[in-house]
Amino acid sequence: MSTITIIGTGNMARTIDTLAVNGGTDVEIMGRDQAKAKALAQAMGDRATPGTWGAAPAGDIVIAALLYQSIVPVVTEFGESLAGKTIVDITNPFNATGTGLAVPHTTSVAQQVAEAAPADAHVVKGFNTLFSHVLGSGRPVDVFLAGDDASAKASVSALVESLGLRPRDTGDLSMAHWVEGAGLLTMGLARSSGSFDVSLGVNELAKAS
Amino acid sequence: MSTITIIGTGNMARTIDTLAVNGGTDVEIMGRDQAKAKALAQAMGDRATPGTWGAAPAGDIVIAALLYQSIVPVVTEFGESLAGKTIVDITNPFNATGTGLAVPHTTSVAQQVAEAAPADAHVVKGFNTLFSHVLGSGRPVDVFLAGDDASAKASVSALVESLGLRPRDTGDLSMAHWVEGAGLLTMGLARSSGSFDVSLGVNELAKAS
Repeated sequence: MSTITIIGTGNMARTIDTLAVNGGTDVEIMGRDQAKAKALAQAMGDRATPGTWGAAPAGDIVIAALLYQSIVPVVTEFGESLAGKTIVDITNPFNATGTGLAVPHTTSVAQQVAEAAPADAHVVKGFNTLFSHVLGSGRPVDVFLAGDDASAKASVSALVESLGLRPRDTGDLSMAHWVEGAGLLTMGLARSSGSFDVSLGVNELAKAS
Repeated sequence: MSTITIIGTGNMARTIDTLAVNGGTDVEIMGRDQAKAKALAQAMGDRATPGTWGAAPAGDIVIAALLYQSIVPVVTEFGESLAGKTIVDITNPFNATGTGLAVPHTTSVAQQVAEAAPADAHVVKGFNTLFSHVLGSGRPVDVFLAGDDASAKASVSALVESLGLRPRDTGDLSMAHWVEGAGLLTMGLARSSGSFDVSLGVNELAKAS
């Protein structure tokens, strides 16, 4: 029985909570608003418990389901509580028009999180290309991952599989810039097709597309 | 019966030639090496004819199947021959390590082509996320498109469908930067999975993934 910690109580947090609990993973839910974290944990049932904001997470994998503006401040605030943890950054740093990124072109939110996190923590980018209703659809959608530490990425990949989803490794953490760009592509596809029922995926030649 | 013009005689040019001819489109093939263009046209059969390098293309759609370093010089060289044409840029401006783009972050090869082309030409980005053997596999793989002119993009979309492929509109030409980044993602996925039998695609919630 494994445990993950989710920081956040919004739509994406709730969707990942549900997938994790349904997949047999225990979930610790942390929110700045303790009442919200407690209510969400209660709604999720026996496998979910509310955690304490800023305390050391129970899970080795910590999913930071926050807005991109909040994740670096929150990781900084948690500080050494995150020592040794694998932090999953699911944010989309869209600019005001949704056509570019609100971070410098030489980096990504994921890389900024890695700089803010304890030296022995690992950061994995993922989940940002999925609208929450697509993520929670019950379909085996693709989760694009990027990260420098092979072991951390392998553990996140195993988690992704336990959620009924397909991990897709794009490379090291520098690829997070392009995975964040893939979030923009997903938005562009949704705008152009007039439907948010889309996701980016990977087709394999040998299998049905 | 429609006609397209393909500038280039390499692997991608050959693959698109084959798909077009098989889809009932006449193809004019232009190469700087006229002997190569003639040989390729002959290999393609009755629907293919060699064109004259630098002359006005027979097709309204001109697929520039060139290396990214060549496309702006070639479009500049063709000059007013491309007036009124829809130019399809299929290039991948990978840097030396294949982890970033070799064009400034504020633009894309496609936008550079638009600047070099006649004012009444239109540029559409596309096909760059597909390895040639995947493009030619006979599978209905996804072709990500970006372009400013709706009519030009619609005609390229119709061509893509006639090739047995799926056009996926990502937005205006500024999205070409992220479509070029999607080429990097495709390379990253291939590297990480150890297989080049992959392509980026779009999954729709209502359909089989």
